[in-house]
Formats: sequence, structure tokens, C-alpha cells
Amino acid sequence: MLDSTAAGVFAIAPTPFHPDGAIDWDSLDRLADFYGQTGCNGFTVLGVLGEAPKLDAAEALAIAKRAIARAGRPVIVGVSAPGFAAMRALARPVMEMGAAGVMIAPAAGLRGDDQIATWFRDAVDAIGGDIPWVLQDFPLVTGVSMTPQLIRRIVNENPSLKIIKHEDWPGLEKITALRGFERDGAMRRTAILVGNNGLFLDFELARGADGANTGYAFPDMLVQAVKLSREGARDAAQDLFDAHLPLLRYEHQPGIGLAVRKYILKRRGILASDALRKPGAALSPTAQAEVEYLLARLGRRCPQFALAAS
Amino acid sequence: MLDSTAAGVFAIAPTPFHPDGAIDWDSLDRLADFYGQTGCNGFTVLGVLGEAPKLDAAEALAIAKRAIARAGRPVIVGVSAPGFAAMRALARPVMEMGAAGVMIAPAAGLRGDDQIATWFRDAVDAIGGDIPWVLQDFPLVTGVSMTPQLIRRIVNENPSLKIIKHEDWPGLEKITALRGFERDGAMRRTAILVGNNGLFLDFELARGADGANTGYAFPDMLVQAVKLSREGARDAAQDLFDAHLPLLRYEHQPGIGLAVRKYILKRRGILASDALRKPGAALSPTAQAEVEYLLARLGRRCPQFALAAS
Amino acid sequence: MLDSTAAGVFAIAPTPFHPDGAIDWDSLDRLADFYGQTGCNGFTVLGVLGEAPKLDAAEALAIAKRAIARAGRPVIVGVSAPGFAAMRALARPVMEMGAAGVMIAPAAGLRGDDQIATWFRDAVDAIGGDIPWVLQDFPLVTGVSMTPQLIRRIVNENPSLKIIKHEDWPGLEKITALRGFERDGAMRRTAILVGNNGLFLDFELARGADGANTGYAFPDMLVQAVKLSREGARDAAQDLFDAHLPLLRYEHQPGIGLAVRKYILKRRGILASDALRKPGAALSPTAQAEVEYLLARLGRRCPQFALAAS
Amino acid sequence: MLDSTAAGVFAIAPTPFHPDGAIDWDSLDRLADFYGQTGCNGFTVLGVLGEAPKLDAAEALAIAKRAIARAGRPVIVGVSAPGFAAMRALARPVMEMGAAGVMIAPAAGLRGDDQIATWFRDAVDAIGGDIPWVLQDFPLVTGVSMTPQLIRRIVNENPSLKIIKHEDWPGLEKITALRGFERDGAMRRTAILVGNNGLFLDFELARGADGANTGYAFPDMLVQAVKLSREGARDAAQDLFDAHLPLLRYEHQPGIGLAVRKYILKRRGILASDALRKPGAALSPTAQAEVEYLLARLGRRCPQFALAAS
Repeated sequence: MLDSTAAGVFAIAPTPFHPDGAIDWDSLDRLADFYGQTGCNGFTVLGVLGEAPKLDAAEALAIAKRAIARAGRPVIVGVSAPGFAAMRALARPVMEMGAAGVMIAPAAGLRGDDQIATWFRDAVDAIGGDIPWVLQDFPLVTGVSMTPQLIRRIVNENPSLKIIKHEDWPGLEKITALRGFERDGAMRRTAILVGNNGLFLDFELARGADGANTGYAFPDMLVQAVKLSREGARDAAQDLFDAHLPLLRYEHQPGIGLAVRKYILKRRGILASDALRKPGAALSPTAQAEVEYLLARLGRRCPQFALAAS
Repeated sequence: MLDSTAAGVFAIAPTPFHPDGAIDWDSLDRLADFYGQTGCNGFTVLGVLGEAPKLDAAEALAIAKRAIARAGRPVIVGVSAPGFAAMRALARPVMEMGAAGVMIAPAAGLRGDDQIATWFRDAVDAIGGDIPWVLQDFPLVTGVSMTPQLIRRIVNENPSLKIIKHEDWPGLEKITALRGFERDGAMRRTAILVGNNGLFLDFELARGADGANTGYAFPDMLVQAVKLSREGARDAAQDLFDAHLPLLRYEHQPGIGLAVRKYILKRRGILASDALRKPGAALSPTAQAEVEYLLARLGRRCPQFALAAS
Repeated sequence: MLDSTAAGVFAIAPTPFHPDGAIDWDSLDRLADFYGQTGCNGFTVLGVLGEAPKLDAAEALAIAKRAIARAGRPVIVGVSAPGFAAMRALARPVMEMGAAGVMIAPAAGLRGDDQIATWFRDAVDAIGGDIPWVLQDFPLVTGVSMTPQLIRRIVNENPSLKIIKHEDWPGLEKITALRGFERDGAMRRTAILVGNNGLFLDFELARGADGANTGYAFPDMLVQAVKLSREGARDAAQDLFDAHLPLLRYEHQPGIGLAVRKYILKRRGILASDALRKPGAALSPTAQAEVEYLLARLGRRCPQFALAAS
Repeated sequence: MLDSTAAGVFAIAPTPFHPDGAIDWDSLDRLADFYGQTGCNGFTVLGVLGEAPKLDAAEALAIAKRAIARAGRPVIVGVSAPGFAAMRALARPVMEMGAAGVMIAPAAGLRGDDQIATWFRDAVDAIGGDIPWVLQDFPLVTGVSMTPQLIRRIVNENPSLKIIKHEDWPGLEKITALRGFERDGAMRRTAILVGNNGLFLDFELARGADGANTGYAFPDMLVQAVKLSREGARDAAQDLFDAHLPLLRYEHQPGIGLAVRKYILKRRGILASDALRKPGAALSPTAQAEVEYLLARLGRRCPQFALAAS
């Protein structure tokens, strides 16, 4: 079960599909194995950007079940939904299947600090206070902005909240503010794991984040960067990070980023196909060539990340 | 099965709940009967504002099943969902249960005419081209605006689209534009039924709408108004409409409107409780007194709509 | 100078234009006179919906100057702008010209209670703490939602805030909450004047509003309704209000409402033209006929509001 | 005067302020000189992110005048405004002062392709068809999305449109689509200059962009990268770009990016102060140290960009 000591890398898993849109179970197994082999501490399925909204309820349950059975490490399940009944209908069964916790993002359209705080209390009531959960703070997608003061309130009102998935933007000062609240005794300790494909991982770790909870197609890099950073090897961590940044940035493009990520995971032999379910664009040949160019440069700069030619 | 000759009143049914949030099946039966007794041509369950997002997948199916079994007239089922898989997982079974068609609103976040048109084609592919459907044009809630030209394109590209549920705002000129396209042969005939609680029903009928597809708690008024309008009794229709307008407007308040509607349906003896599922506010005693004041005035002005004192 | 005892009707003045887009100064004079003749306590120029964003800086100053010189009663000047420099560059001169105060709406894009409160303190710093001002609470247009708790904070932090222009939606419980804060001593007294074309004026007055600050083309009705309500003649006030509601609702349509309002003011002999500056649609002949139909019905029901045939 | 052969780098100039918020004219002069010394082809003042909305009308004119007088190369003036009168009141005088053209972003709130296209035609009518202009395509800030098809229409309908400032997101395929239209003869040739701090400059150039129109604090890097790219030295261009990417990304943070940019320009000796006008946060000491760390790394990797210690 998740608790507030969570740290390291929890990858965000894409949902593998066959070109016809069917779920690709074998690739899902390989993905679970891959996260173990690359040193991830756990991973998250059914995330907001993991095509979860494109699944029906039975598919979502089946994916969580398969991933948990295969993982051999903590699995977090995204249960964000427009309503509490659907949230509960996913959260309770996946915990029984052995999930380590769930992830919840605020519903679009919430207005004002009080309404947001009430919504989270109601969400916890709905799923049950015994389920540890991750608060996803991702205003670019949810449209819901939460100040550090509001997050402090949500943390203090909900003991089962264990991890903040931080992807506000800009966000460095927010991490500093939250860690300041903890130091002052105004907020209990929670883990902070960062998202946004790790685009600011270098400084987020220095500001006090405990690790990453994001989907960059080289989780092995994230694992090493977090390790180096914890060991105090700042320059080495930054060198590693900088070598990946051109590709990481390319994968972080909104709208097309998931297609890039799946393409790379296919190139790494994990996914059988880079298909997205509709609606969702495929990479053009030009975009594929751009990714290959960046992969080749990365491989030259860091041979450990070199991929065999496609 | 729905077709483009649909006309009259298709009520939008709220979902009845007990105070503890459980579905109130007896009230749902009474509601189905009520729509028949008041002369509705059919009704819609699981609409965007009918708390459909608060239901889990199994509940949604069960409500559709019960309503269809009881209705004795066409039932339309709202299947709007963030993804096509969930849409299909609801649409196919309810059609097998005997639904007359489904209703689809565009997903939030669609950008640009081409993307919107593509999304609807994909949605129809997902549910199957054999299911007649209602296009819900409700930008205030969906955030997706569609010009008359874009609606024309969607109509022409999707033969299974039979009805436009019109609740753009302002919308009178839009109806005129769509009927103009039909007259010019640029768009095939579709039914237009209006929403927005009927707030502009008087002029929308004059502009060419075929009726209403909305949830005002006096569907009997909507039925009479449409009938009078069709008979050419414009002033009589307007007199009737004007008598209801103070209450109708009160029920049309965003955020609180559904609680008003349920309160009135409870006062009419249809719903056992006016409870909403969380999140959703109850009417304050002051608001209840305001509704009672308006009900009393309506009853004095139009004795046929007088309710027994509460 | 405005203070927190403001009450009655402060009309929102449209900006009169000639068909070629030039400002129509004679009509502006007639408008100022009209507000006096109809018993308004004052009026507001350069409001958010008064085409203020379509004016350049010199035009805005000239309109304020002319209106103040002609008014013979308090004039409020809308100074909302994306930045504080432009706000100050309008606010200081109009106060020197004799304005009674200014109106400020929050800038689009503010996120979180703290940021909104800080923005208002900075706005007051920018214009000077000696200028009485009206807080415009209009989330439908600004996109900025403020809870009663946040408004209480803004009131308490800014002594020069004298009036809340209330057009949140729904808003009845908000007025009740604010008046409750005052009663409990948690918030100092401020005037509350309502907007939204007066669509809920009947109940807003009962909830504690002091009057209206809106632009309905029959301010004489608003004046009478406020007067009757204060005298405790609730049913008479409601009868009057209900008679106007069909037209008032028609004029309240977003996007097209201002064209309706200008059309009626032209029909009343106040404006020489109902032209809007670009971008802004004109009323179609059908829409004009609809307004005429509603005017004729109003005139029959309340002869005091009958207009001569056009 | 701008024309569609524009290419290279047009920097986006920040507006220099003293710590008290007054305009810093000397720094503005140094900035104009700096853009010349670094090889920029021209620069843009009063851009959407250049604090233009914080200036009053007189200040905006004065800044344009000073910059044009000093520049010795083409100056583009941002004239985006909520209304056409303010747009014209800035555009006409700055062209008389010698500006090379103006930049226009679509007004927030436009809905649907037809409305957007009409708005641009009206904007051109307002400023006059003789003024060359830059279309700013920046949906993240304006909220207005334009498909390649819609941009083609706007280009074809407005001969005075000479440059597309491309900062849609993701945007690579959009450049490819627009260049495809040109090749097919479906759209006349226009220059495409990219924004977004150059975050995708490497591939945007390869896709057909003619250069950059953005504000990264090392315009000298942008100039070199464009030059290398044109010479076909792809790897050298990418090496240079990659060396800057960690800092460039840091400067690209929304909300705080402008403070970073001003800080670096101060460190380079161009701006006397890194102050922003209210509302606008200053860099925390931690953030300053982060920027210094990135500057030091950049200086080690590319000595030509090394700054003296602060």
C-alpha cells in the first residue's frame, strides 16, 4: 500500500493497443516487466493521458487486473471520472485486486477553493477513507488550479492522501512552498512525485520532490537521474538529463506526445504497435524521422541508451 | 426507432434518487408514466444534465432498461462519454433493450471545424451506423461551438443523425439558418427539438423547431404550447408560455436548476425525494419558499396547473 | 461620490453609435436625460457589455466627460482593463471630471483565491485608494469565480469598495450569504446592486439587494419594481416584473442582447440608431418583428409602457 | 515595410521597467542596439507577452516611437486589442513613425471558423489594408485555435498578411501543412516565423519555417542556428541548439518565463533592472541560482556564450 514515503520513479504506463484498437495484452505484460527491469519503484495505469477515457468500464478493470498480477511492484490505478459512482466502481475492485493506491484528478469545472476542497472530501467518502491516493495537480488538462495553500488544506483534510503528483506549470516555487509548509509544521509530510514528462525534473528534485511519476519512454534515465541527485552528484545528474532533454521535450508535445512515446517504446521492443485508439493521430513519416534523429544523437552521446537501428 | 419526423415533446428525465444516493426505481416508474399522461411523445434518460456522469456503467444500463420497459413510447438514451468505447458499451445494449435512439454531445476540448466533424464520424463508426441519434448542440456546457455551416456538414456526413437538440445560445437565427439550408436543398431534413428548459420555446417554434426536448417540470405546458403553436394560435400559445415563464426561468438557473425541477416533480407527486447525488446542492428553505410563491401564482393564473398545497 | 448606501437603479448605458461607427453624441445626451426622467439614481458608462472594449482611449475619456456633464446625477465609469496603467489612465481623469466612482471587473485568467485578492489590492493601489469603486462579479464573462468568502475578503481588504455589482449565476444564495456575513459582523456593509438584465430582480431584492445596476431598456420598470418591493408590495412588484419578463428575457440573450436593447431604445426615441460597432450583429427583420410582438403585448398588458407603432 | 520574404530572427523585445514600474528608456535603447549587434533582422515591441497590456495608450505609442527611432532595422509593433478602435489608434501612428508592420492575435472568445475569418477581415478594414501585418497563432494564450485550412483562408482573404508567427502547440505538422498548401498553389506564399521561445526551432526550420520571432535572451544563438540550418549544417545547428536547450526550456516556463528572460538580459548588461510591472512575480533567490547554474554550464559548453560572473 502506498504511503507518504514513496520515492523514486513510478512510471505512467500507456495502454497498448493493436492497430485495430483492441487491447494488446502481451505488450501490457512486457511493459510491466520493462518497468521492473528499468528499476522503477512502481507504475501507474489508467492515467489521464493513458487513454483511460477511451476505455469502457470492463476494459479498465481488466487492464488493472492484468497489470497488478504481472507487476511484482506497486501499481497505482487512475480512477478519475466525472462522477463519484464511477470512481468508486473502479477504485474498490482494483484495491481488492491488489493495487497499491489510486490517483484522482479534480473534475473539470470546479470553481473556488471551497468547492474544490469539498469535492475531494466527497471523493474520499465515495471511494472509502481506507484507500491511499495520489492527488494529481495538472491544471493544464483539468482546468482546475490549486494554490499551495489549497493543497495544504486538502492534504490536512484527507489523511488517506499520500502522494502529490505535481504537474502544475510553472511549478518549482510550488514545491518549495509545500516543503516549507511541512518544515513549519503546517502540513503533514506527503510524497511529491513530478509529472510533465520530467521536463523540470532536474530542479524539481533539488526543490524537494521525491521522484517522478511520469511516462517518458526512458524510465531508466529517470531512475538514474533520481539516484544521482540523491547521492548529491548534481552535475552528473544534469549531464544525464541534458543528454535526454532534446528527445524528452519532443515527447512532451501536447496532443502528439503519446504517439511519440509509443513509437519509442515500440522501437525499444516493448510495444508491438504504436497505435492509439481513436481519436488520436499517428506519427507522420517526417515525425518518425525526427524521433529517429534524436534517438541516434542520444545513442551517440550516451551509448547505454543506444537503440538498434529500426 | 427515431427518425427525422420527430416532433412534439420529448421530456428530459431526471434520475430519481433516494436521500442516501441510491436510485429510486419506483419514482422512475412514476416518471415514465407521468410523461405518458402529460402527452409527451417520448423522453430521454441519462442526459448531460440528468446526473448521468454520476452513475456507474451498470447503473446507467439498469436505468435505461427500466425506463424503456415502462415507457410505452420512444425512449432516447444519452450516451455521451469522453471516449468511444464507453459510448459503444452503452449504446449497443440499450438499442437491444428497445431504445428509440441515442443522444451524443461533442467531447469537451475539440478544436476547429474539421476536428469536430471527424469526431462525430468516428463516434458514429464506434456505435454503428444503424443507430439513430440526436446531436446535442449545447456549447454552454460542452464548450464546443458549432456554426450552422458545421452542423450542415455533420448532418450531411451522418445519415443516422435524425434530430438536432438545439440549445445553443443565442439560437433563434441558427434555427432559421438550418431551415434555410433545408429549403435550399443544401441539407437534408432533420428534426429540431429545443432545449434550454424551453426558455425561448415561443419563438423557436415560430422559427421552425418541431418541438421540445427539455426537462421543465411542467411538460404538460410544453405539450400544449407546441400544439397551440402548430394550430396557429400564436397568442394563446404565448399567453400560456408567459404564465409559466417566471417559474420556468427560475428552474433554468444553472447549477441549481435541477434541484428546482426535482422539487417541483416531488410536489407534483412524481418523485419521492428531490435529492441529488453528490456533488449537488439541495434547495435552501428560502429557495423552496420562492418556488412555492411562483407555483401559487401560476396556479392562480392557470388553474389547470394548480398544485395542492405542500 | 459613491458610498455603501447606494440603492435604487443605476442604469448601464449603452454607447450610442451612428451607422458608420462614429459616436452619436446627441443620442448620448438624450440617454443621460432619459435616465433622469425615468427616475434612475444614476448610471454607468463604459461597462463591460457597453462596447467599452471597442473604444480607443481618447473616445472613452470623451464619452465619460460628456455623460458626466449632462447627467445631473452620479455617473459610474467602467475602467476594467487588462492592465493597471490603462485602468489608472482612465480612472484618475474621470474622477476629476466629476465621476461618482468607477467599476472594476477581475482580469481574465486569474487563478486561485489569493491571486484574485492580490489583484484587487494592486488595482486599488494603481487607481488610488481615494476612488470609490464597484466590484463587478460577472463570472460568465470574466471567467473568474469568486465565492462569498472571497468577496468578503476583498471587501474587508479594500475600504474604497462601496458596491457589489452582482451578476454571478446562480446568485440568490450568494446574496443571502453576503448579507449573513454583514449581520454576523464578519463583513462591513456594502451596497449590492444586481445585473444580468434584472432577470432575477424579483427575488434578488427579497434576498437583500439594494437595487439594480443593469441595462434593461425599460429602466422605468426597474425603478417601479424596486420602489414597490421596498414598500412591501410584493405581489404588485411581481405583477409588474412578470409583465416585462418575456421581453426582458429576450433582451438578455447573450451575443444579441445589446442589439435588442438598442433597438428598443431607438423605438423609445432615445437613440437615433441601433447600430453596434464591429464586431456586432444587427437584428434580422425576423428578430425585429419578434421584439415588436413582445412590445405590443407589453403595451396591452401595461399601457403605461405602450410605445407608439414604429 | 514587411513582406512575405521575411526571414531570420525578429526578436520579441520585453519592455524594460525601473523597479518602481516606470519605463526605462535607456535600457530600451540598449535593447534596440543589442538586437542589431546580435544579428537580428528586426524586432517586435508591444507583443502579447511583452507586458503590452500593462501599458496605457500613451506609453505604448512612446515605446514604439523610441524603438523605431533607435532600431536601424525593421520594427514590428504588436497592436492586439479587444477592439478595433484601439487597434487602429495604435497601428496608424506607429506606421507613420516608421514601423515595418504590426502584429495581430485573434481576440479571445471568437467561436467557429467563420467568425474568426470575419474578425480578421474586420481588423484589416479597421487598421487599413495598406499595413503589412503578422498573424499571431498562439492558442495557448488566446484560446482561439485555427486549423491549417482556416489559416489558408485568412491568408487568401487578406493580401496585407505577410508573416505567420507560429506558436501553436503542437505545431510541426501545421508548418508542413501550410507549406504543402503553398506548393499546391492553394495558398499564396507567406513567411513563417516561430515563437514559443524557439523550443522546437530545430525541427520547425526543417519543416519550412523561415526563422524565429521570439524572445529568448540569447538571440545570437537563434541567429546562428537559423544560419547553420540554412547552410545545411544540420548537426552543427542541433549541437548549438541542444547546448542552449536546458536554459531555453527554463526561460519558457509560463508565468515566470519573462522574469527569467529579463534576469538574463540584465546579466548580459542590457537591462538595468529585471523588474516586471504588477502583476508579475520576481525571481526568488533559488530561481536566480538555478538560472546562474544553467548559465555557467552553457558558458562551459559554449564559451562564446559565457557571461562574466554576476
